[in-house]
Amino acid sequence: MRKKKYNLYTKKEISNNIKKISHQLMIRSGMIEKSSCGIYTWLPTGMRVLKNIKKIIRKEMNKNNSLEICMPILQSKKLWKKSNRIKLYGKELFKIKDRNNKTMILSPTHEEIITNFIKNKIHSYKELPIILYQIQTKFRDEIRPKEGILRAREFIMKDAYSFHKNKKSLNNTYNKILKSYIKIFNIMNLKIKIKKVNNGIIGGNISHEFHVKYTKLIKNKIKKRKKKYNKSIEIGHIFQLNTTYSKIFNAFIKTKKKENKIIEMGCYGIGISRLIGAIIENNCDKNGIIWPISIAPFKVSIIPINIKKYTNVKKISEKIYSQFKKNKIEAFYYDTPEQPGKMFAETDLIGFPYKIIISQKNISKKCVELQNRKTQSKKNIKIKNILKVFIKKIKKK
Amino acid sequence: MRKKKYNLYTKKEISNNIKKISHQLMIRSGMIEKSSCGIYTWLPTGMRVLKNIKKIIRKEMNKNNSLEICMPILQSKKLWKKSNRIKLYGKELFKIKDRNNKTMILSPTHEEIITNFIKNKIHSYKELPIILYQIQTKFRDEIRPKEGILRAREFIMKDAYSFHKNKKSLNNTYNKILKSYIKIFNIMNLKIKIKKVNNGIIGGNISHEFHVKYTKLIKNKIKKRKKKYNKSIEIGHIFQLNTTYSKIFNAFIKTKKKENKIIEMGCYGIGISRLIGAIIENNCDKNGIIWPISIAPFKVSIIPINIKKYTNVKKISEKIYSQFKKNKIEAFYYDTPEQPGKMFAETDLIGFPYKIIISQKNISKKCVELQNRKTQSKKNIKIKNILKVFIKKIKKK
Repeated sequence: MRKKKYNLYTKKEISNNIKKISHQLMIRSGMIEKSSCGIYTWLPTGMRVLKNIKKIIRKEMNKNNSLEICMPILQSKKLWKKSNRIKLYGKELFKIKDRNNKTMILSPTHEEIITNFIKNKIHSYKELPIILYQIQTKFRDEIRPKEGILRAREFIMKDAYSFHKNKKSLNNTYNKILKSYIKIFNIMNLKIKIKKVNNGIIGGNISHEFHVKYTKLIKNKIKKRKKKYNKSIEIGHIFQLNTTYSKIFNAFIKTKKKENKIIEMGCYGIGISRLIGAIIENNCDKNGIIWPISIAPFKVSIIPINIKKYTNVKKISEKIYSQFKKNKIEAFYYDTPEQPGKMFAETDLIGFPYKIIISQKNISKKCVELQNRKTQSKKNIKIKNILKVFIKKIKKK
Repeated sequence: MRKKKYNLYTKKEISNNIKKISHQLMIRSGMIEKSSCGIYTWLPTGMRVLKNIKKIIRKEMNKNNSLEICMPILQSKKLWKKSNRIKLYGKELFKIKDRNNKTMILSPTHEEIITNFIKNKIHSYKELPIILYQIQTKFRDEIRPKEGILRAREFIMKDAYSFHKNKKSLNNTYNKILKSYIKIFNIMNLKIKIKKVNNGIIGGNISHEFHVKYTKLIKNKIKKRKKKYNKSIEIGHIFQLNTTYSKIFNAFIKTKKKENKIIEMGCYGIGISRLIGAIIENNCDKNGIIWPISIAPFKVSIIPINIKKYTNVKKISEKIYSQFKKNKIEAFYYDTPEQPGKMFAETDLIGFPYKIIISQKNISKKCVELQNRKTQSKKNIKIKNILKVFIKKIKKK
């Protein structure tokens, strides 16, 4: 991507009220912009990160024979009355009246609607197991929205629901998805802690939470927080719901022996937008974000020094950019004259994993400089080898 | 995809109240399922179609240097009061009160929010032109939701917004996007009619609508409707809004001469979910949908005859499926014993563009049969050539 065609929307000054590092960095790096209290617009850089995260999650979910669907945001109140969750959720539930004075729910979750769907569609043990998932916008009327996308009123989730002829099959799928979650978070460079917890108001009897520890910045310095469990962010939660919802909605199958049997059910959530906050909390330094390569909005920035003065610098920069483009490596190219200091600071803030610096001095040695954002290491690489070296680097990750 | 791993959720009986062909076919083919009045769940087959449509639109929008963002569904009432559209939209606007009794809007469109964003972010003529787009869920409290996704209360749109230093630049971008729209609809096999229309309550002074004619089924037979313009579906609408919104939100830039100038603006919508309805209305026969290959949920079905009885049939079917999978051709494989008639009817209903039929009789001639859904033409192809022949066929499209 050429800078000329891409406004980064980075920000120098941000409100003093923004305390959480990930919140600060997402606003400063131009990933998100506040729209209302607890509600954000995703800007182009944030969208690129979201796209990468969704791709990783979809890939791993599909491997488990999960199929993607999309359930509506507006749900009938009737279903929520039936499950009694309209009471249990209380004021966190956004309710809306349509022109006919019918109350509808802005979905925070979809157990009711999917169980009702399965009840209507599935009638035989032969049709199970089924795993359906969606990536959808969800709503929660938080009493105190804060910390940016970590506790927002409108947010993005991946939620999956599985249906089974018996507990054994549910348990199998549950363990498979638990393993997928570990893999997903590994790819994202997150050290997670898995905790067996109480199911709570959602129902059922086995449940695991996925937590990420985070670091806290005290006086633009980084200090590890005490490794207390309660200083972590919950990014995923899976449940064996058993027959909690299928009983309510009377979802049953005929067994091999032609007997009626209530369906066993599991559900599996990942807080996608909040995951991004957790990744940033764990991958940053005083200069900004340090993206794991799998998630980075761009993998590398191409930074020419004095592009206006030296035609050679421009020529080599253009050449490297077009090589990278041809090889589908997402590179961000500063193709307009800018102060080197500004470019370095900006690319470090947004967190591209690598920089390639093209200067007249290095060109005379037929080299460019490759910098690693995380280790800060610098290396001169022959111009003719830069593509090969870079492909090797990103393939290792 | 193996049938064993994929529930098609097709339906034989549907309500008599469903009159529109596309509505009937989307329900019968298992693409969507009604959730509440004018509100639908997208099932796996529908999701695959949506994914293909989004991919085509993103590709063409990105070519125009448009960048993808995502604006929130919940919007502050304040912005809508400022533009006076809260009055103009009237009862079609879904309004919601949060726990602090603040009214918010469930977005039907995003002119207010994006103009407010640009006002805060853009200050110089050098930063323009900008084109931002999103693919987002939208809401409209229709007085009479009907015809499935053609007139739904919750629907999916692509909406783009462009900002310019002067009318000439706006006009350039407007014409570029108009051309992109023609290309997008061409790829989707839609014959469109472009009509210059009045801008209406949205404001501005130049506007074009994109319409698709449709056919009507009278007594599961197809009869072309009179080619009257008002018998068409509107699938896209673009506007030169000029300074309508930028004036209201005081969005201006400094010109080269350091003078303040109000920003020129355009907006560009495609009704994505409704587009799918329009494509089906124009690509169907008495047996079901006939997908253009670019949009088909699967490009081909692999249909073995008597898979249980003949091990050879199974062997060849498995071989062809794995060849197709390796070459990333989306094939739907009936890997469980089913009646041939049922498989033919189902695959015709859902509308896969090709069928490959594997029978003992043909295998003895080292052949399989390739059928074209649209032309109904049949051809015997040597087993060893089937992949090559098929790749050629889909590349032609």
